[in-house]
Amino acid sequence: MKNAEGTTRSWAAWAVAGALILGSAAAIPAADRTRDLMPAPAKISAADGMFRVTDTFYVAGEGETSARARNAAARFMFRLSGRTGLFLKQDFLLSQAPGDAVSLAYACERAGKLEPNEDESYKLAVGPGRISLTAKTDLGVLRGLETLLQLLSSDGEGYYFPCVEVQDAPRFTWRGLMIDSGRHFMPVDMVKRTLDGMAAVKLNVLHWHLTEDQGFRVECKTFPKLHRLGSDGFYYTQDQIRGVIAYAAERGIRVMPEFDIPGHSTSWFAAYPEYASGPGPYTIERKFGIFSPAFDPTEERTYRFFDGFLKEMADLFPDPYLHIGGDEVEGGEWKANPKVQAFMKRNSIPDNQALQASFNKRILQILTRYGKKMVGWDEVFQPGMPTNIIIQSWRGQESLVESARKGYQGLLSNGYYIDLCQPAWEHYVNDPLPENSPLTDEEKKLILGGEATMWAELVTPETVDSRIWPRTAAIAERFWSPQSVKDVADMYRRMNIVSLQLEEHGLRHISYQAMMLRRLSGKGCTAALKTLADVTEPLKRYTRHEQATYTFLSPYTRFVDACLPESIMARDFRASVDQFLRTKDKALADEIKASLVRWRDNAKDLAPVIAGAPALAEVAPLSEALTLAAGTGLRALELVVAGGTTDLPWADKALQTLAAAKKPAAHAELAILPAVEALVKAAVRM
Amino acid sequence: MKNAEGTTRSWAAWAVAGALILGSAAAIPAADRTRDLMPAPAKISAADGMFRVTDTFYVAGEGETSARARNAAARFMFRLSGRTGLFLKQDFLLSQAPGDAVSLAYACERAGKLEPNEDESYKLAVGPGRISLTAKTDLGVLRGLETLLQLLSSDGEGYYFPCVEVQDAPRFTWRGLMIDSGRHFMPVDMVKRTLDGMAAVKLNVLHWHLTEDQGFRVECKTFPKLHRLGSDGFYYTQDQIRGVIAYAAERGIRVMPEFDIPGHSTSWFAAYPEYASGPGPYTIERKFGIFSPAFDPTEERTYRFFDGFLKEMADLFPDPYLHIGGDEVEGGEWKANPKVQAFMKRNSIPDNQALQASFNKRILQILTRYGKKMVGWDEVFQPGMPTNIIIQSWRGQESLVESARKGYQGLLSNGYYIDLCQPAWEHYVNDPLPENSPLTDEEKKLILGGEATMWAELVTPETVDSRIWPRTAAIAERFWSPQSVKDVADMYRRMNIVSLQLEEHGLRHISYQAMMLRRLSGKGCTAALKTLADVTEPLKRYTRHEQATYTFLSPYTRFVDACLPESIMARDFRASVDQFLRTKDKALADEIKASLVRWRDNAKDLAPVIAGAPALAEVAPLSEALTLAAGTGLRALELVVAGGTTDLPWADKALQTLAAAKKPAAHAELAILPAVEALVKAAVRM
Repeated sequence: MKNAEGTTRSWAAWAVAGALILGSAAAIPAADRTRDLMPAPAKISAADGMFRVTDTFYVAGEGETSARARNAAARFMFRLSGRTGLFLKQDFLLSQAPGDAVSLAYACERAGKLEPNEDESYKLAVGPGRISLTAKTDLGVLRGLETLLQLLSSDGEGYYFPCVEVQDAPRFTWRGLMIDSGRHFMPVDMVKRTLDGMAAVKLNVLHWHLTEDQGFRVECKTFPKLHRLGSDGFYYTQDQIRGVIAYAAERGIRVMPEFDIPGHSTSWFAAYPEYASGPGPYTIERKFGIFSPAFDPTEERTYRFFDGFLKEMADLFPDPYLHIGGDEVEGGEWKANPKVQAFMKRNSIPDNQALQASFNKRILQILTRYGKKMVGWDEVFQPGMPTNIIIQSWRGQESLVESARKGYQGLLSNGYYIDLCQPAWEHYVNDPLPENSPLTDEEKKLILGGEATMWAELVTPETVDSRIWPRTAAIAERFWSPQSVKDVADMYRRMNIVSLQLEEHGLRHISYQAMMLRRLSGKGCTAALKTLADVTEPLKRYTRHEQATYTFLSPYTRFVDACLPESIMARDFRASVDQFLRTKDKALADEIKASLVRWRDNAKDLAPVIAGAPALAEVAPLSEALTLAAGTGLRALELVVAGGTTDLPWADKALQTLAAAKKPAAHAELAILPAVEALVKAAVRM
Repeated sequence: MKNAEGTTRSWAAWAVAGALILGSAAAIPAADRTRDLMPAPAKISAADGMFRVTDTFYVAGEGETSARARNAAARFMFRLSGRTGLFLKQDFLLSQAPGDAVSLAYACERAGKLEPNEDESYKLAVGPGRISLTAKTDLGVLRGLETLLQLLSSDGEGYYFPCVEVQDAPRFTWRGLMIDSGRHFMPVDMVKRTLDGMAAVKLNVLHWHLTEDQGFRVECKTFPKLHRLGSDGFYYTQDQIRGVIAYAAERGIRVMPEFDIPGHSTSWFAAYPEYASGPGPYTIERKFGIFSPAFDPTEERTYRFFDGFLKEMADLFPDPYLHIGGDEVEGGEWKANPKVQAFMKRNSIPDNQALQASFNKRILQILTRYGKKMVGWDEVFQPGMPTNIIIQSWRGQESLVESARKGYQGLLSNGYYIDLCQPAWEHYVNDPLPENSPLTDEEKKLILGGEATMWAELVTPETVDSRIWPRTAAIAERFWSPQSVKDVADMYRRMNIVSLQLEEHGLRHISYQAMMLRRLSGKGCTAALKTLADVTEPLKRYTRHEQATYTFLSPYTRFVDACLPESIMARDFRASVDQFLRTKDKALADEIKASLVRWRDNAKDLAPVIAGAPALAEVAPLSEALTLAAGTGLRALELVVAGGTTDLPWADKALQTLAAAKKPAAHAELAILPAVEALVKAAVRM
């Protein structure tokens, strides 16, 4: 699912909408209905008044609660104390007993089950004297506590919760994030802090991509060579996996493992070449892409192997679902193997797709035997597969619609590929069930939700947070909130707030940048470097792979890795330019000028830093391009302010300058160029 | 060992030396002998030339190496690639085979044992065509690889290693850092990144303080109520502990557990009150201090309990040593218990010290049975204890000398209490074996080394890195390098370089600050807040406890927690002032003036930030004091430049202003006041 053609196609259509949306950012007032909540709740109504937070704030469970709810309430109190600096008097770890002095009372009828379609609804009522949070299941309590924390506000007197009533429930029951531990191993603490972030924005499925050509990441007792020979030593022990599952369960999050077969499996064959379709020998794949090694679907020993393997994994992972991947089977080994070809002829299997379908049916039998339901990428949707499997679509809406019409449950991931470094709004406007969906109401029920996918070719534990957050919060809102919540400007406003809050879980999506720039500069002098990084973005989609052959061993510590996927500064600058061009506001012109002057003059501060750090040499062209582009923008701004110019040769030259500045360098690109181009075009008076 | 009186006493003596040292900082040239290495090696000689680092850099083991050395070499390559941005061509995970194209060849005779007095020496020779690293044990290879990475340099053409010969070995065999997981639980990833930092500065013992009044942090299978009822759920599973031990062993670091008995043990009694000397009931202690609960040393069941407990722990922790704490037994429960008093009378035990000694002897028998040697704090040094135990001194040099004279091995921790927020130089000038030591050469051999101690009353996983690093690098140098390496200014120069390098292990001692300030401000506008934080330090020693009653549940997210233990900016400012007062250099005066103006004017930028964030209200007095102090400094500077003043009333008033500015606020204090005071005093012409 790496060649996201569907995404590319729909991107062109969005580009237009996006430009409009971007332009309107400054014009839209803060939507009171959503306050600072993300995801926005289904229903919220504000009342006058507030609940003032002091050090006597007391949380209590009423009636039958659950250990999970109590623990979540304790974490809520730690976070409340952390944000307010209050020395809370309650020993919320020892006692959450009900009583007269209760500030926040929570209640639920039962513990929620960690499976699709479980009730996650809650009702939150903040009154001036008491806050009440009620839910059918403790999962609802967890979701409501996150909402309440996001409501924390302050005034001159201190902190408070505004009086509101919230009635909330998710739009989709499957709200996932996929972590790819195969291509780059992600240590347990990365997974845990990601789970905390997921809980904060009400995601409920961690889809854990655990095996790849580049690595087999799970301790396997039945076939121990898998992790011993297939992982370079980078794997999770079963105790660590149980720890992650327990940590997720405490946060109301399911953990669904993925073992990608029959392709994407070179690392398995480094351990057990006898199950491959080719002659071998195999070594762990270092490069990224699509490779030919695939399991031999014609041998019974292959299925005996999977019987043993999946039995153990079904036991290790309690989730009712298990993902078998199934994507991008290149087929080269099958084609080259006469035995496989003979098998196909003998069994009237016309092509590789059908061969994979026969393989999948055998795997499905095994999974069923061990009590698991099957999930797979688009390719598992093949004639003859029973409809009790779930199709995860990386190809796009059409394939999702097609499979739903045939009765399959589906998940949308196309459009949520957060590794591609697209801006948040592109993901945000992508809907698992768009308003114009051709599906019937019955068919619509088959669309369970979606998943953001953090493919890990180009990330390490050091940088991965910055690729997940905060953009995944926008996707989480798409999965949770009503379809009608779609104001992009307000989404960005709230996403920036949530982004700061996410840091309390140890997420490093903001703080990693300064650290990387310090290391790159070698000296800690990073102001000029940051000025450049703030308006630079990594190359989008898969174009970075055209610049160099990345492997598991490559450095992901370069300038491009320190650049955020979406430059908020460039976005704000574009909004200012658009507004200025509409209004010709003088103060805005001054603001734009100040930014452009700073960018134009940055190169002279940056030059000595680059000279002192060879790893930064590749950044010099970007720095020069910024100077030229900003200089062009300054001249264009002058001309606009002066009423425009008829000097078309100047405009041509200016646009050529900008076109030259677009040239990627250091695997990155300047993000302010479209805004400067808009200035240049606006400067021309016909 | 919390009432570090010894430290307080010696501090006064150092203050004078410190002032001299501080003043000379700018005058001392970078010591070429140590280059940027920390700890400085025993012997280094430079030659002309360099080894140029390109993407063909190739590492290989020669002869019999070890898996540990190979893994360390692989990590070296990851880090080299990370620092240089080079796409190294070698697959250093798959092959480190010797051959013609080898850049770095390492060799060792055998795997080192993880115990005191093992050989950690190495010889590193960087030639223009080849780098050779040889050692007796693989531990030496590990240490040498760290040295080599610290030698990485750059020029206009790229990265290189300068040609040098290093012959190195540690001065002390026991170079430890104690982590206190009892008072605040520290998750596994904190322990692991700390181990990486330790390895980088050649520390070799993690002393893991695992139990306290506030928490019992180890899964115990023999007595499972210990972790279930004694930890609030914050404990390490045995698999996690094994993981930490393996991680440490890969880095050549021993892990010595501490179970602090018979005092400091309230959390044990929350699980098993029957082993206490008091009637109970007990709950986990929330506050910090010295408490009366203590094991009942008069009951045989107590020793049966410890037999089972220590048997299990001796098995879990492979280190030959086990630390039994033994400090600060308050004695209240013993005094109040008639049965204990009768036991003492019956057995002619004169006092609590003797009673504890009898307890320790029984524990020693158990430890001996299970193959462990005993370590304890000062208090275990009691008449009649055999000399095969190790005394760890928190009380000071005298107690260390006294025990050495009686034949006990010793470790110095007094003077290395990094939780006290002292400046690095105070630890640096503290020597386990000072030049004027009264010990004989034979007795000196009993001093094995020392340990920095990170007591955890006031730290959380979020802030703890900033209390450990980079100051512990200075302590590590004291333990490793020759006694003659003691240039404080050069130590600071190198410590600041190493500090940046330590970030590559995910240590957050620098990056956490901006994150905390963002959270405190609530908005991400942190420039003015950082200006204040840069010249503010947490209250030193235990004075923070006088300002509020801190507990396990308190917030450690306030401004004081975002302030670094030692303000490098204040230190540099002081050096500039001292140099200016000596030289009356005009450029320095301008620099000092610019700093003072910035500090004086900061309050007006900070005021709206404070007004918008109630958690910052407590900071206002500090901000105002900074304005007043900086204003006073500006006037004093003017007067010094003008040749001084005879206006004594002005000077009196200025000093009063500074005295008022010294008043702690927000549990913190301004660090620039002594420098401003020096300016004021210099302005007075008698």
